[in-house]
Amino acid sequence: MPDFQNWISEHQLRFEEVLKHLLASADLAPQQLHAAMRYSVLDGGKRVRPLLAFAAGELAGADVSRVNIAAAAVEFIHAYSLVHDDMPCMDDDVLRRGKATCHVEFDEATALLVGDALQSLAFQLLSENCLCDDATRQLQMVKLLAVASGSRGMAGGQAIDLESVGKHLTLTELEHMHIHKTGALIRAAILLGAHCGNLSQVQLDKLDRYGKCIGLAFQVVDDVLDSEADTVTLGKTAGKDAKKEKPTYVTLMGVSDAKKMARELHQEALQSLAECGGKTHRLNELADFIVMRKF
Amino acid sequence: MPDFQNWISEHQLRFEEVLKHLLASADLAPQQLHAAMRYSVLDGGKRVRPLLAFAAGELAGADVSRVNIAAAAVEFIHAYSLVHDDMPCMDDDVLRRGKATCHVEFDEATALLVGDALQSLAFQLLSENCLCDDATRQLQMVKLLAVASGSRGMAGGQAIDLESVGKHLTLTELEHMHIHKTGALIRAAILLGAHCGNLSQVQLDKLDRYGKCIGLAFQVVDDVLDSEADTVTLGKTAGKDAKKEKPTYVTLMGVSDAKKMARELHQEALQSLAECGGKTHRLNELADFIVMRKF
Repeated sequence: MPDFQNWISEHQLRFEEVLKHLLASADLAPQQLHAAMRYSVLDGGKRVRPLLAFAAGELAGADVSRVNIAAAAVEFIHAYSLVHDDMPCMDDDVLRRGKATCHVEFDEATALLVGDALQSLAFQLLSENCLCDDATRQLQMVKLLAVASGSRGMAGGQAIDLESVGKHLTLTELEHMHIHKTGALIRAAILLGAHCGNLSQVQLDKLDRYGKCIGLAFQVVDDVLDSEADTVTLGKTAGKDAKKEKPTYVTLMGVSDAKKMARELHQEALQSLAECGGKTHRLNELADFIVMRKF
Repeated sequence: MPDFQNWISEHQLRFEEVLKHLLASADLAPQQLHAAMRYSVLDGGKRVRPLLAFAAGELAGADVSRVNIAAAAVEFIHAYSLVHDDMPCMDDDVLRRGKATCHVEFDEATALLVGDALQSLAFQLLSENCLCDDATRQLQMVKLLAVASGSRGMAGGQAIDLESVGKHLTLTELEHMHIHKTGALIRAAILLGAHCGNLSQVQLDKLDRYGKCIGLAFQVVDDVLDSEADTVTLGKTAGKDAKKEKPTYVTLMGVSDAKKMARELHQEALQSLAECGGKTHRLNELADFIVMRKF
């Protein structure tokens, strides 16, 4: 898929500049906080959520300058969650995206504030820029990201994850955790990208179904990669979930069934796109990319 | 001021029910996270920021049901900042509002997530409820809270505070820190309450000036109280700033000059209210309350 690879590279490069521009300069007080925010967001990450937002935006005929903002808001939420997740009281990890985690490079207090301030910045972006012509709908976009981030979304998924360490989870419980922990923000990325343009409610529902499948598939693949890859390939500490006795799709189903599940979710995602209609080819390619990235 | 005391008590009692209603039930999964969120917000606090929002709302002729939401959003941001601020990597405090801090009662990871989820909830509230008839203006309200919370507001103030430990600050630098650390959210509370109703831009500017003075006075009084009171009266660990070699108005100016500064800020706040005009008596009384609460 050379065309798709170009599409990814172009968006990644352009989006890196967008992020640089939206983050406060490290010259601006408080300098250490701003430097640490830039450190935690820039020069790393596959930008999967932004790419999904851009693909959904293309489907919805959205202005890319608007999708930039929505995608950045989602990426700031994602980046804050990684910074907090890596802290000693959570996963206590020292390596992220191939470099020292924020609390190692700076200190814990700074990492705490970096996460807090990145979350605020996400909501600032969604409220200070015109993202769609209807302000009431834009308020719904703010709500969408807030719900996806909060106690019934990503933060709630993290809490379920914490409670599950050392416990036996059923497959349903594991799915429940991931639908919140990673799925909510992936779905939000897709829907926010779409809301920058125009789609029917039926199309939005199909897209959301796609997002739900892709979000779960993403996690299943992550578990497989975590169980198989080494630290250098992964850019973060490998095998850490198994070491911490965290339940994963691999520990519950075995590698083979986990791969099968990822393929089934992949198919369901493509089916939902087919029912959505329109220019969905980038979303199709992203589904392939997410599921087949390493196996 | 028996009438004013009644006004405070009535609003505090009613607002406690509002907060209980807006926080997810502890029966709802993830239960521990929701229980910890309720623990951190309910049954404590003077609710100074909400009271300021209610008083500004009365001045602006706002519907109290709208101000409830705006005030709760501000209080959730405030509560999250206390939870994170008390954590071992920040102030490492065990007592808050007369009870164990969140990370002591639960654990550090939960406290981290409580703060994160409370921030999300604040923005959810501001976006999912109708707070003013003009959705574009409501987006500005979201922005106002986001900026007040972020790296150029409260979180930034915390960062400046961290950097200042053990350093000599000038009075200007100390003021700069507090304008961000506590002042930004106090001003946001007042302006958000006002935006739920209708005021002219000139009136909003006068109110903002009032908020700036009151915010600083609040901090000066806090420093004086912290240096003079004991732990039981304060409901939090007394004298901790001095112990940590954090610069305060008292360490920089002495108690007597700090009290004088609080009185001058108080006068400036009242002057700004006089120029604002309208039903400002509750804001007047709150200024008295904040400055004269303990000396």
